[in-house]
Amino acid sequence: MLIETLSTFPHMYDSVMNTSMMRIAQDKGALTFHAYDLRNWTHDRHRTTDDEPYGGGNGLVMKCAPIFEAVDDIAADADDKPYIIFLTPQGRQFDERCAMELSTRSRLLFVCGHYEGMDERVYSLADACISLGDYVLTSGELASMVVIDAVVRRLPGVLGHDDGTIDESFHHHLLEYPQYTRPSEYRGMKVPEVLRSGNHQAIDTWRHQQSLIRTKQFRPDLLSKAHLSAEDRKFLDQNSDGLNNKN
Amino acid sequence: MLIETLSTFPHMYDSVMNTSMMRIAQDKGALTFHAYDLRNWTHDRHRTTDDEPYGGGNGLVMKCAPIFEAVDDIAADADDKPYIIFLTPQGRQFDERCAMELSTRSRLLFVCGHYEGMDERVYSLADACISLGDYVLTSGELASMVVIDAVVRRLPGVLGHDDGTIDESFHHHLLEYPQYTRPSEYRGMKVPEVLRSGNHQAIDTWRHQQSLIRTKQFRPDLLSKAHLSAEDRKFLDQNSDGLNNKN
Repeated sequence: MLIETLSTFPHMYDSVMNTSMMRIAQDKGALTFHAYDLRNWTHDRHRTTDDEPYGGGNGLVMKCAPIFEAVDDIAADADDKPYIIFLTPQGRQFDERCAMELSTRSRLLFVCGHYEGMDERVYSLADACISLGDYVLTSGELASMVVIDAVVRRLPGVLGHDDGTIDESFHHHLLEYPQYTRPSEYRGMKVPEVLRSGNHQAIDTWRHQQSLIRTKQFRPDLLSKAHLSAEDRKFLDQNSDGLNNKN
Repeated sequence: MLIETLSTFPHMYDSVMNTSMMRIAQDKGALTFHAYDLRNWTHDRHRTTDDEPYGGGNGLVMKCAPIFEAVDDIAADADDKPYIIFLTPQGRQFDERCAMELSTRSRLLFVCGHYEGMDERVYSLADACISLGDYVLTSGELASMVVIDAVVRRLPGVLGHDDGTIDESFHHHLLEYPQYTRPSEYRGMKVPEVLRSGNHQAIDTWRHQQSLIRTKQFRPDLLSKAHLSAEDRKFLDQNSDGLNNKN
């Protein structure tokens, strides 16, 4: 997969893209990454990418022309047109399904603001508008890195499970069960007996029930999307207070 | 504000924390940042921070001891105890209100996983568990940077509006109105006339109505939280199809 970004602080990506999973993905050839400097498509001495808003108000607005010209150039020589993504609060809420969909594409281009809004007309370039969540970031670069991480980890070979089975939160709309590693007791806190029993069927049952209970307690909204068996529903009814039901 | 992070890839923060707003916040003295290497609290030759899960399964689990010992040390000398944050899918959904609450604290410590889950017992250290959204990241460092960006931009002096009024998405549970800057026409797309009218009352009304319409179209769930006037409600009723109602 080819992932490109267009922003005014291309070096912001350096330490994230050259560490750990992102580095491995590039070394394995699963990912090619390039961060373009939007200022390369300005024509004035100060390399201006923003200007005052029409109608007044605080802050600056990113100009149309550098973004349109950059996208023209980046996409020009390609048979493989990039899928162009803007990160904006009015976009589709990013989730694991969206990450999965993006991971099937061959080329993504993220157009990232920084501090300020963009001239509305640039959104006519968008193939997708995505929102990370209901919060405001100064750095569109950082927002794009989150999407890139969630996408790249799904590419074949990157995390080593090429069969496509990723057993983790959100995969089945359930939160993950609790995990433990050695020692079996630490500062008075013990690992649940069942996990040390060697009884794999009992372990699987316990883990699945813990996922159900935790999802019910912390994210009841997810349960409506999960595929629950009749047995699951019965278990949840019997454990109606979730993890707090300790007495 | 003092922000500290504890993880196995402390250098992942370098290029984000030393660029733009994050750099300015530190230069102005509003933010002190330090990324600790969790491996400094290991005692074996390989500086191991993870181990196999009890009960079997793929992947490794982060060990208790390095994290407990690190938090002990980091918090030890302080009158000002850090507010300890874990980023996990079962946490509270991060939003602008959460960013605002965190921005009032004097010291935050983010404990970040990488790839893998953590031994459940470490969560006993948590003052808060936060989730960025319904997606999985390999890099807890990256997740923490998102929260740090949203928090630091709110610190007095950092963005230059010390009066605390931030006029942007989510502040009033409405999406932002569209912005435009020069030129007034670009590739056939024109700036709305009203924004060039000089009539500030008309501009304010148009912008507010655009916020209402966009929120209704893209994020109708936010409208229930917004403080709408009788006039707002009437306007929304009359524009029931949102932006698509062009004919």
